[in-house]
Amino acid sequence: MDTRSIVVYKFGGTSVATPERIINVAKRLMAAKARGEKVVVVVSAMGDSTNKLIELANQVSNQPDSREYDALVSTGENISAALLAMALIDRNCPALSLNGAQAGIRTTDIYSRAKIMDIDCSRIQSELDAGKVVVVTGFQGVTPHDDITTIGRGGSDTSAVALAAALKAKTCHICTDVDGVYTTDPRMVPNARKLPIISYDEMLELASLGAKVLHPRSVEFGKQHQIELVVRSSFSDDPGTLVKEISEMEEGLRPVTGVTVDLNQARIAILKVPDRPGVAGTLFGHLSKNAVNVDMIIQSIEHDEINSITFTVHKNDLEIGKKVSEEFAKEVGAQGVVFEDNIAKLSIVGVGMISKPGVAATMFKALGEHNINLKHIATSEIKISCVIDQTKAAEAVRVLHDAFELEKETV
Amino acid sequence: MDTRSIVVYKFGGTSVATPERIINVAKRLMAAKARGEKVVVVVSAMGDSTNKLIELANQVSNQPDSREYDALVSTGENISAALLAMALIDRNCPALSLNGAQAGIRTTDIYSRAKIMDIDCSRIQSELDAGKVVVVTGFQGVTPHDDITTIGRGGSDTSAVALAAALKAKTCHICTDVDGVYTTDPRMVPNARKLPIISYDEMLELASLGAKVLHPRSVEFGKQHQIELVVRSSFSDDPGTLVKEISEMEEGLRPVTGVTVDLNQARIAILKVPDRPGVAGTLFGHLSKNAVNVDMIIQSIEHDEINSITFTVHKNDLEIGKKVSEEFAKEVGAQGVVFEDNIAKLSIVGVGMISKPGVAATMFKALGEHNINLKHIATSEIKISCVIDQTKAAEAVRVLHDAFELEKETV
Repeated sequence: MDTRSIVVYKFGGTSVATPERIINVAKRLMAAKARGEKVVVVVSAMGDSTNKLIELANQVSNQPDSREYDALVSTGENISAALLAMALIDRNCPALSLNGAQAGIRTTDIYSRAKIMDIDCSRIQSELDAGKVVVVTGFQGVTPHDDITTIGRGGSDTSAVALAAALKAKTCHICTDVDGVYTTDPRMVPNARKLPIISYDEMLELASLGAKVLHPRSVEFGKQHQIELVVRSSFSDDPGTLVKEISEMEEGLRPVTGVTVDLNQARIAILKVPDRPGVAGTLFGHLSKNAVNVDMIIQSIEHDEINSITFTVHKNDLEIGKKVSEEFAKEVGAQGVVFEDNIAKLSIVGVGMISKPGVAATMFKALGEHNINLKHIATSEIKISCVIDQTKAAEAVRVLHDAFELEKETV
Repeated sequence: MDTRSIVVYKFGGTSVATPERIINVAKRLMAAKARGEKVVVVVSAMGDSTNKLIELANQVSNQPDSREYDALVSTGENISAALLAMALIDRNCPALSLNGAQAGIRTTDIYSRAKIMDIDCSRIQSELDAGKVVVVTGFQGVTPHDDITTIGRGGSDTSAVALAAALKAKTCHICTDVDGVYTTDPRMVPNARKLPIISYDEMLELASLGAKVLHPRSVEFGKQHQIELVVRSSFSDDPGTLVKEISEMEEGLRPVTGVTVDLNQARIAILKVPDRPGVAGTLFGHLSKNAVNVDMIIQSIEHDEINSITFTVHKNDLEIGKKVSEEFAKEVGAQGVVFEDNIAKLSIVGVGMISKPGVAATMFKALGEHNINLKHIATSEIKISCVIDQTKAAEAVRVLHDAFELEKETV
């Protein structure tokens, strides 16, 4: 059996928001089937229907029970999947919908952010062999005790890539409301260029940094199982952006692939922390226990040999982050806590920067020439991030896009 | 283990139409649990949510596929069940929701009108033993291949009674938007009396005849498994009406229990049908093949020894019924087909009429005294029905209610 011809498609909430759009998706899938593909399609809930369900949950309970919450919000995907299967069958294309349980998607039992453990593809496989388009609900699975779980927001991307891996599909098409991955946000930089190809690692950095086209977990999964991801429009036949492992030769082409900015960060600094062993461990332990995700961390040695510890968190976590930090400051006898939320985290990403020295220098020089002050710097192998004043964010993105000539096909 | 303390409740769509009403249901169930009951509750979809799903189905397809249709419309019950469980848990009452598959409700694979084959209660039982209120989605089940089915409109009543039978519960409370079963429609006859008790057979006749409080299949199921049904209000503590097997002694009390009228019937007559053996069988075979449910049948011998065949059907079936009848008339050489849709089917029901002669005479005399003409008469052991002019329907109900003194506690 040639499992290589299985292709997985994922359509997000915007793409199935109305009956007309569902019919449009059905037609695209019928074209794929006519091309000889064995089609598996993963759908999200229609438009904002999940939010309406969450509203209901909050109206009947102060703290919705997590098991019931998942049973509730997963119904959105059941609806869109059944409607899409109906639309296909009505147009003489054999199809059926499968929910998480029926599709054999087994997860851990951590509700609302379950992890997919394995997928028993026997039902999907036999329906494909019978010539059907198989429509699978995204975002959901079941525990070993058959309780319904959801795998977190943006989870339908992950469902699709996990299914592609389990079915040994070569490619997973993520069809969405943008037509690909750009060098930066085209609303900020009009000459931003759509990338024909990008590596998993770059996509991962871009996804984590706020380019909302692909959920980071789905990219990790794709990389791990070497599934090629295609990010493309639900509404056109444009080829989109291919996300795959890029060879060293290809890597050499360009040091920087994209520029990204995150306006939802805040910065907390704890001043004059006594320099005792394990003191940083205590702080970040407290933050973690309170579910505060910490991003860029700097621990600086001041002239009087006492540290200040600075880090960034998501704005939503600022209040709890401040509270934990202030308690910690009291506990260890630090001088105090200051914070700032009018910041932007600006990053350049590119697998090519590993082998090209001077990328950081180019970045800092370009920003400096435009009087954009750097408050905080952090780097990884394929990314350089810095914190700047939020009012300078749009300008800074344009400056870097120009400095690295990202609008051009090749450097 | 004392299974006798298990009590099953069913709440219909009106009773869970809003978050406030769901909270109200939660409070009633908590009171039941506080009384020491092991509570299983079956819920319908919220208000008119099922109709909204059907609308969506019709927008994506001309002829919705039956498997997908069931997968779609069953989501309404998943939503209300999860919300009710949430409301309970949020008020410190341990609870969980189970969909048809999780509750072990196995059905045939005839979509949209599946029959419950058996219920594997092990999950429900263990959750009850753990002290939880178990909320089960009404109206749905799964085939032996785990495909989702629905058991037809009004099916939540049947789900509830079937669960009561499987759990060996003694009583099933059907909580609805009326506070019990009345001697007739109180909107027609202001002194209609709520019946404290009624037999399965009477309830069955009343349910089939248009008293919309209980689905006939659920009454049959209750009778078969000797589950006491209590029809009561979702919004008050009124004891409602008890539906159970009534002993002969009790039966003797009153010849007539209720009067009912059905305004949704139409009457078709095929004139001068040649009197050949099997000719009626041919007609009703054709009607059945076209899914036309036939009710009161009369085959009369006219003076010239040629039959006319007259029957009633639901108004929705009138067009197809006429078409089939006209084809039949041509086929066998009958004179023609006439029909009438401004009729009412008026019935009196009572197990006591078996042993009380003269009930029919009282009925016909009372109607005759008010110049209400009888077009058609049919009788069973516990029911007498006649077809009258629709304009006389309300008057006829009042006349019979008075004639049998149904407003009085005992005769």
